[in-house]
Amino acid sequence: MKIVEGKTVSCVKGYKAAGCHVGLKNSGKKDMAVIYSEVPAVSAAVFTTNVVKAAPVLIDMEHVKNPTTRALVINSGNANACTGQQGIEDCKATAVKLAENLNIKPEEVMVYSTGVIGQLLDMDKILAGADTCVKALSSGGDEVHKAIMTTDVKEKCIFVETEIGGKTVSICGIAKGSGMIHPNMATMLAYVVTDAAVSKDVLEKMHKEITSVTFNMVTVDGDTSTNDTATIIANGCAGNSIIDKTEGTDYEDFYEAVYYINEFLAKAIAADGEGATRLMEVEVTGAESGEQARTCARSVAASSLVKAAIHGADANWGRVLCAMGYSGAEFDQMKVDVAFASSKGSIDVFVKGVPLNFDEDKALEILTNDAIQIKINMNCGSSKVKAWGCDLSKDYVEINGSYRS
Amino acid sequence: MKIVEGKTVSCVKGYKAAGCHVGLKNSGKKDMAVIYSEVPAVSAAVFTTNVVKAAPVLIDMEHVKNPTTRALVINSGNANACTGQQGIEDCKATAVKLAENLNIKPEEVMVYSTGVIGQLLDMDKILAGADTCVKALSSGGDEVHKAIMTTDVKEKCIFVETEIGGKTVSICGIAKGSGMIHPNMATMLAYVVTDAAVSKDVLEKMHKEITSVTFNMVTVDGDTSTNDTATIIANGCAGNSIIDKTEGTDYEDFYEAVYYINEFLAKAIAADGEGATRLMEVEVTGAESGEQARTCARSVAASSLVKAAIHGADANWGRVLCAMGYSGAEFDQMKVDVAFASSKGSIDVFVKGVPLNFDEDKALEILTNDAIQIKINMNCGSSKVKAWGCDLSKDYVEINGSYRS
Repeated sequence: MKIVEGKTVSCVKGYKAAGCHVGLKNSGKKDMAVIYSEVPAVSAAVFTTNVVKAAPVLIDMEHVKNPTTRALVINSGNANACTGQQGIEDCKATAVKLAENLNIKPEEVMVYSTGVIGQLLDMDKILAGADTCVKALSSGGDEVHKAIMTTDVKEKCIFVETEIGGKTVSICGIAKGSGMIHPNMATMLAYVVTDAAVSKDVLEKMHKEITSVTFNMVTVDGDTSTNDTATIIANGCAGNSIIDKTEGTDYEDFYEAVYYINEFLAKAIAADGEGATRLMEVEVTGAESGEQARTCARSVAASSLVKAAIHGADANWGRVLCAMGYSGAEFDQMKVDVAFASSKGSIDVFVKGVPLNFDEDKALEILTNDAIQIKINMNCGSSKVKAWGCDLSKDYVEINGSYRS
Repeated sequence: MKIVEGKTVSCVKGYKAAGCHVGLKNSGKKDMAVIYSEVPAVSAAVFTTNVVKAAPVLIDMEHVKNPTTRALVINSGNANACTGQQGIEDCKATAVKLAENLNIKPEEVMVYSTGVIGQLLDMDKILAGADTCVKALSSGGDEVHKAIMTTDVKEKCIFVETEIGGKTVSICGIAKGSGMIHPNMATMLAYVVTDAAVSKDVLEKMHKEITSVTFNMVTVDGDTSTNDTATIIANGCAGNSIIDKTEGTDYEDFYEAVYYINEFLAKAIAADGEGATRLMEVEVTGAESGEQARTCARSVAASSLVKAAIHGADANWGRVLCAMGYSGAEFDQMKVDVAFASSKGSIDVFVKGVPLNFDEDKALEILTNDAIQIKINMNCGSSKVKAWGCDLSKDYVEINGSYRS
């Protein structure tokens, strides 16, 4: 598996893509994108669990059931969420327009929106934008990953090549994140685009499994947005023998590469959380079950008090124990170990339920870093998991407290 | 029912109390308190649901089962949490010492600690402090409510007199709150002290019911501490006919007064949240069930994004819908109304699933206030509830991000 710098989604065989400015963002930045597969592809998607689902989520939950997918269309600047029946109609009209332009079926189009909540889409701009994007479709050098950004500071794009059954398979992952909802800006969106040949059934199972331990383990502020969606699309153009079972070397190689991409994007979203100055990785090992591990890890990563302590480079293990304690998971605190780590080393602070008199200067040195690990060993089993978050800074309050503008 | 200014817990008939400095806080502030009933009283308590429970919580869960309670002893400055078996032994020794001094049984003593997590109590100071406090016991003018404070900015004490069956019953409530865990400072503690005659059984039922809609509806940062406890004690010295059933005028009068006190203290804790500049009340009406109402209200009150918006006086209803959506409660967003209100008026922003074009200047005027209401009507039933929280300010990050000192 090799990481290739500088390549984007349309560098994957059999795809064309475009990211354009169609007038939704006043800033003049790119705000609409299309990813198009020249041949019928299969897709899988995981959607927000929020009861309040944006219109495109409701539409895509249907469209993803179609045996084939040909195009993904994404707009930023408006989330088309809480927009009632008109929002649904607008979303359908976008799919129909794309389908006409590309000579495919509307149900082969997946539609995504991110941005302001509670405002109707400017359909004149969206429909004209669909024309613009389709005309601009090209292979290589697209800027889709830029067109999907809202308040993200950093671009999130990664390209991997791997050998599967003797064929080179390309996989590109892009994402946007930041706050789950910025002042009216919503959504984590992630796309993994590959030319691998894989059955829809296997793709669905693998995608669900990988997102559960990558994107679903990211928390910026605990607020699951109305639009969150992670999509994977595979068109088979790499020419590998089709992966149609969830075992064997081909599946494992594919899984490894997709997992790598998802984890990379998950960490990038956490590190680019609103106001973030540090990436925080919570690693739970020795858990009785994956469920126990996930519950504890997510609770620690989401705790405002833990996040504030990490911001202040404070080895405040009491807050880690406390967040595990209210997570809903049952465990015996007398078995728990806690350590803090970073590239500058590791320090044990709590061992088998007993606080250690640790070296505060050493802890401060470890915690004064861009990427911090909180390592928890529950010492009661063999399950493990990681969760990612970021510190809680004054800038988070500044960004999210400012009057909508 | 009448609110009496200037009275404290030991002004309730049949109680003596003292708040002293015994050396646990370096600041020289009061750090230990005893509340003593001259006659056998009944008590009830609700404890933290955190799996990680401090030593005094574990002891009190046993002691509260005793038919009678005579004394409450509280120390601030050290939470006796995550202190292993030694913490349990220290807590027991404190109860034994108090019992000897007061000539009562150890199981008639309830012990509470709040402050630093993960450090053993200085038992020399605690045991000498028990002598000091018992010698200082007096009726009227105690400062127990000051001795239980940690990072609280404001004192929280309220005294009510009400008529029950022709007798004047006094009820005093005190509490401490602030962050659920300040840099190593833990705990919400609340005490309601009354001379009402009431059976233990009725007291338990009433206390559980009232705390579920008052203290359990407060969130400062979503972090349930290791020490949280709400206790009520009643010694019968008012001479009213014993309240031994959960119905009838006497019960209702008593319930009303205790409810008033609990709600008062709950709001005071929210308003004094770390870094808080505004009290936020989330009122859910028209819910299908109390459970649905509570789930939605607590989720909105706990949302970092809602809290940051309230800090910035931003009528960001999208975040309110979003927090309801991920709360875990099922509901139909197309029925929901949302309004913001304060002493400066009320403004509808979302009606039956449709965003309104509201007057932003009017909204800003309403939200620029010390106490803000978020009013949610689910329009699908008759259950209602309130939750209380505070805004998320940069000071919260400052307080909780600073290196432990």
